[in-house]
Amino acid sequence: MIKGIAASKGYAIGQVFLQKHEEIIITDEKVSDVSAEKERLQVSLDASREQLEKIKAKAMVEMGAEKAEVFEAHITLLDDPEFTGAMAMEIENNSLNAMKAVETVTNTFVSIFESMDDAYMRERAADIKDVSKRIIANLAGKGGDAFAITENNTIVVAHDLTPSDTAQLDRSKVVAFLTNIGGRTSHSAIMARTLEIPAVVGLKDITEVAKTGDMVIVDGIEGIAIVNPDEATIKEYTAKKEKFEAEQEELKKLINVKTTTKSGKRIEVCGNIGKPEDVKAVIENGGDGVGLFRTEFLYMDRDNAPTEDEQFESYKYVLENMKKQVVIRTLDIGGDKTLPYLPLPHEMNPFLGYRAIRLCLDRTEIFKVQLRALLRASVYGKLAVMFPMISGLEEFQAAKELVEECKAELKAEGKEYSEDIQWGIMVEIPAAAVYADELAKHVDFFSIGTNDLIQYTLAADRMSEKVSYLYNPMHPAVLRLVKMTIDGAHKHGKWVGMCGEMAGDEAAIPTLVEYGLDEFSMSASSILTAKKIILEQE
Amino acid sequence: MIKGIAASKGYAIGQVFLQKHEEIIITDEKVSDVSAEKERLQVSLDASREQLEKIKAKAMVEMGAEKAEVFEAHITLLDDPEFTGAMAMEIENNSLNAMKAVETVTNTFVSIFESMDDAYMRERAADIKDVSKRIIANLAGKGGDAFAITENNTIVVAHDLTPSDTAQLDRSKVVAFLTNIGGRTSHSAIMARTLEIPAVVGLKDITEVAKTGDMVIVDGIEGIAIVNPDEATIKEYTAKKEKFEAEQEELKKLINVKTTTKSGKRIEVCGNIGKPEDVKAVIENGGDGVGLFRTEFLYMDRDNAPTEDEQFESYKYVLENMKKQVVIRTLDIGGDKTLPYLPLPHEMNPFLGYRAIRLCLDRTEIFKVQLRALLRASVYGKLAVMFPMISGLEEFQAAKELVEECKAELKAEGKEYSEDIQWGIMVEIPAAAVYADELAKHVDFFSIGTNDLIQYTLAADRMSEKVSYLYNPMHPAVLRLVKMTIDGAHKHGKWVGMCGEMAGDEAAIPTLVEYGLDEFSMSASSILTAKKIILEQE
Repeated sequence: MIKGIAASKGYAIGQVFLQKHEEIIITDEKVSDVSAEKERLQVSLDASREQLEKIKAKAMVEMGAEKAEVFEAHITLLDDPEFTGAMAMEIENNSLNAMKAVETVTNTFVSIFESMDDAYMRERAADIKDVSKRIIANLAGKGGDAFAITENNTIVVAHDLTPSDTAQLDRSKVVAFLTNIGGRTSHSAIMARTLEIPAVVGLKDITEVAKTGDMVIVDGIEGIAIVNPDEATIKEYTAKKEKFEAEQEELKKLINVKTTTKSGKRIEVCGNIGKPEDVKAVIENGGDGVGLFRTEFLYMDRDNAPTEDEQFESYKYVLENMKKQVVIRTLDIGGDKTLPYLPLPHEMNPFLGYRAIRLCLDRTEIFKVQLRALLRASVYGKLAVMFPMISGLEEFQAAKELVEECKAELKAEGKEYSEDIQWGIMVEIPAAAVYADELAKHVDFFSIGTNDLIQYTLAADRMSEKVSYLYNPMHPAVLRLVKMTIDGAHKHGKWVGMCGEMAGDEAAIPTLVEYGLDEFSMSASSILTAKKIILEQE
Repeated sequence: MIKGIAASKGYAIGQVFLQKHEEIIITDEKVSDVSAEKERLQVSLDASREQLEKIKAKAMVEMGAEKAEVFEAHITLLDDPEFTGAMAMEIENNSLNAMKAVETVTNTFVSIFESMDDAYMRERAADIKDVSKRIIANLAGKGGDAFAITENNTIVVAHDLTPSDTAQLDRSKVVAFLTNIGGRTSHSAIMARTLEIPAVVGLKDITEVAKTGDMVIVDGIEGIAIVNPDEATIKEYTAKKEKFEAEQEELKKLINVKTTTKSGKRIEVCGNIGKPEDVKAVIENGGDGVGLFRTEFLYMDRDNAPTEDEQFESYKYVLENMKKQVVIRTLDIGGDKTLPYLPLPHEMNPFLGYRAIRLCLDRTEIFKVQLRALLRASVYGKLAVMFPMISGLEEFQAAKELVEECKAELKAEGKEYSEDIQWGIMVEIPAAAVYADELAKHVDFFSIGTNDLIQYTLAADRMSEKVSYLYNPMHPAVLRLVKMTIDGAHKHGKWVGMCGEMAGDEAAIPTLVEYGLDEFSMSASSILTAKKIILEQE
C-alpha cells in the first residue's frame, strides 16, 4: 500500500500498464562547435514536429477538433522565437549543449507559468514541459511514443503524464491513473478530474513497485494505491467502489434541485470557468450561474492585445449559454508574467506588485477595451463584473469612472449596453476584508478570493515549498476575515460570493454556510457535492 | 525654487559647493582578449585600494576608528571572491567588458540589499555602490577624489553622496546637503540625519541649476531648495531658521522628562537600534529604553554564523549601557538575502517566503545559539525578546519550547539566566493582528511592525516603484488592525509597542495615543519630537 495525493475521486480495480520512464541525464558540458549543436537542435525540432502532427491527427479523430487544438499549440511552440529561438541563442551565446539549452529556456518559462494562480496558466506550463521533454527525448535518441494499451480496465502507472501522453491513451480502456510526481493542480490530476476517473499522484516510486500486468487498487478518496492486493482487500474495495458509484448516481438527481439550507436560506452554487466553452460543464452539473469567469485566457499566447470584438464575442457566448448570472472578473495579470504587447517591470515580489486592477488603472488603453466589450455583451444576459486586487475605495471608484467614460462613448456611437449590470470587487487583499463594512456601501457585491486572501493574511506564498505548510484556509484569522466580509456586506444589504478553492472545500462549506455566505463558486465537478452538503446544513 | 524630498529637518542658508558628476557610459560591447580585460580590472582594483587606504587614514584621524571601519569594509570588498571575483568571472565566461562586469555584479548585490527592510542593510547597498563607482571611475581614467571645501557655511550639491564622499567632507564647514537622486532612506539622507544637518534629496536636476558660489536656501522641513533667493526670501528663511533652532533647544529640555499624556497616562518612548553602539544615541536623546534591537548585523559580512559568545557580548553591552528595558528581536532574515553559511532556496516572492521565525524554527541549530546568548545576557539588565513574522500561536509555542530546551541546557552547564525575561511577538502579519485577542493570552507583549504589516495588509511591496503609492500607514484598514491589536492585548492586560516607521510619524502619533499604544520606538533622532507631541495629547 502506497500513500500519495488524492487527485481525482473514486475507486478503480484493474491491471497495471506501466509507462516506462527513462531518465535522461543533462550535463553542464559546453560545446565547442556551436553550429553543429544548433543543427542537432533543429533535427530534433523537426522530429518533434512530425510526431506532434501524428498525435494531432489522432486526437482530431478520437477527441474532436477542440481537444486537438492543444497539439497545434505544441507545434506552434516549436517555431516560437521566444522559446526554441531562445534555445538556439543559448547554444550560440553561451556554448550550452542542446539539451542544457532546452532545459534552461524551459525552466524559465515553466517557473513563470506555474507561479500563476490559475489552472489555465498551469496547463500551459504542462504543455511547455511536454514539448520540452519531447525535444530532449529526440536529442537523446529516445523519441517517439509507445502507448499500446490492449486490455480493458487498465490503470496507467507513470512517472508523470504529459498532455500528449493523455491524448494517446485509449479512453475506453483506461479507468485510472497513478503517478510518481505531481500535486492536486498538476496536469495529470486535472486531466483525471476532467475524464472523471480516479487518480492518485505524488506516489514517489509507484513505477518501481508496480509492473505491467499487476493487479492494483486505486483509492482516489484517501490517495492510496494497493499493488497486488489480497482477496479480502479486493472485496472491501469492490464494495467501496459500488457504494461510491451509487452515491454519484444519487448526486446527479441534484442537478435541477435549488439549493436551500434546512432553515430555508437559498444559496447559489456556481461554477468557475477559464474559457467560454467551460460553461457547458457548469450547466451539465446544475450550476446556478458562473461565479468567476477568468478573462486572462483572452490575453495569452498572442502578439497583440485582444480586440474589443473578440472579447465581446467571448462574453456574449457565456452569457447566452449560461442564461443565469455570470460574474466576469476583469484582467488579473501582473508582474510574474509578461506579455509581448505589455512589457512589465521586474519586481522582487510580484505577488505584492503591479498587477490586476493596479495595472488596469495605469494602462487604461488596455482596460477600456475590456470594459467596452463587457458593456456591449451585457445586453445578452445577466452580467456582473468584478475588479480584482481592490485594496481601497479609490480603486473601485476609479474603475467605475472608466466604466462611465465607456458608457458615454458607446452611447455616442449608438451601441447598446444594459443598465442592470452589478459591479463588485474581489475581496482578496486583507485591507478589503478588514474594511468591508465601508466598501459595502459602494459596491453591489463582494466575491471572496480565498487563494490570495489566505496568502496575504498569512504572508505565505503557497507556491513556495518551504512555507506552503502555513497556507491554511481554516486558520482562525482567515475565518474571521471571511466573517467580517460577510457581515460587512449584509449590514448594507449586499450579497457575498466566494470563488477561491475554499468554496469547494467540503470541510469548509458548513462553516461558510453558518457565516451566511450567499454564493459558492467552484470547479464544475464539485458543484453537486457542494449542493448535497449545503442541503444538509441548518 | 525646486521641490524635492525632505530628508533631514532644519534650515540652512549658505553657498553652494557643486560636486561635479561625470556620467560614465557603460556599453554592452564584448571583449575578445579576456585576459587583458581582467588585467585592466585588476589595475583599477589596485588603484581603488590605494585611494581607500588614504580615505581610511583621513577618517581615522578626523572621525575616529569606528567611522573609519566602513572603509576597511570597502577595502575588504575589493578582495571578496563573491564580489570582485564574480566580476572577473563575468569577463572570463561571458566576455563582458570590465565596466559592464562591474555593473552586472553590483546590480545583483545592490538589489538584494536594497530590498531589505532594514537601514543597516540599505547602508551596505550604499557601500557596495560606492566601491563599484570607484572601480568604474578608475577604469574610465576618472578616478581619484577632489573635495576641496574652503568656505564656511557650505551647502554641498551633488548628484548623490556616497559614504566615501561623506567621509571626505569637512564637517566644520558643511551645513547642508542637496542631491539629485535618493529618498528618505538613501545613504545621503541617513547621513544628514546622523550629522543633524538639513538635507533635501530627489531634487532631480539641482546640479544643473546651482553653481559653486551660488547662494542657496535649504528647507529640510518642506523639502525645498531656493537658488539665489532675493532679500525678502533670505529674511523670511533666516527667521524660520532661528525659530526652528530655538524649538530644537526647547526640545532638549525634554530629555529627562517622563512622557505622560495630559490625562496622566505614562507612555514609553524608545529607540530602534541596529548595532550595539547605537544605544548611545538613544540614551543621549532621552529614550525610555530600546524598543527594537535588530540582530541581523551580527550575521552579515562573515563566512560563519556568529558564535554564542559574540552574540552574548553584544546583547550584554546594550543591556548594561541602556539600564532600561531592551527589546531584542530574534534573527529576521530570509529568502531575499543569502549568507555564505546559510544557503536559502530561491523564491518567487521572498517577502511571502522562508524567513524570520519560519527559518529559525526550521534551522534550530542556528536559532538555539541566539536563544542561549539571549538567556545568558538576560542577567545584565531588563530583557524582552520578540519573535518576528509570527502568523499563529503554534509558532510562538514552538519558539518558547526551544527557549525551555536552552534553559535546561544552561542549567545543566551551570550558566546563569534570568527568569524575568518578557517574551513577545512582532505583529506584522495581518493574521496576528486579526487574531490578537487570542494570541494576547499567551504572550507578554506585542510590538507592531508597521512596515511589514502595511505591506501585507495592502498587498503592496513599498520597494516596488509601480505600487509604492499604495503604501499608506493611514489606510483605514491598517488603522483598524492597529486598534484590534491594541484592544486585543489590553483585554488580557498585556502591553503593546510599535517599532515600525509609523511610530515616529508625527502625523500618526496622536491617533496611536488615542488608540492606547503603550510604547513607541523609533530612530533616536525622532524621540524628542515624539515626546513633545505625546505630552500635548489628552
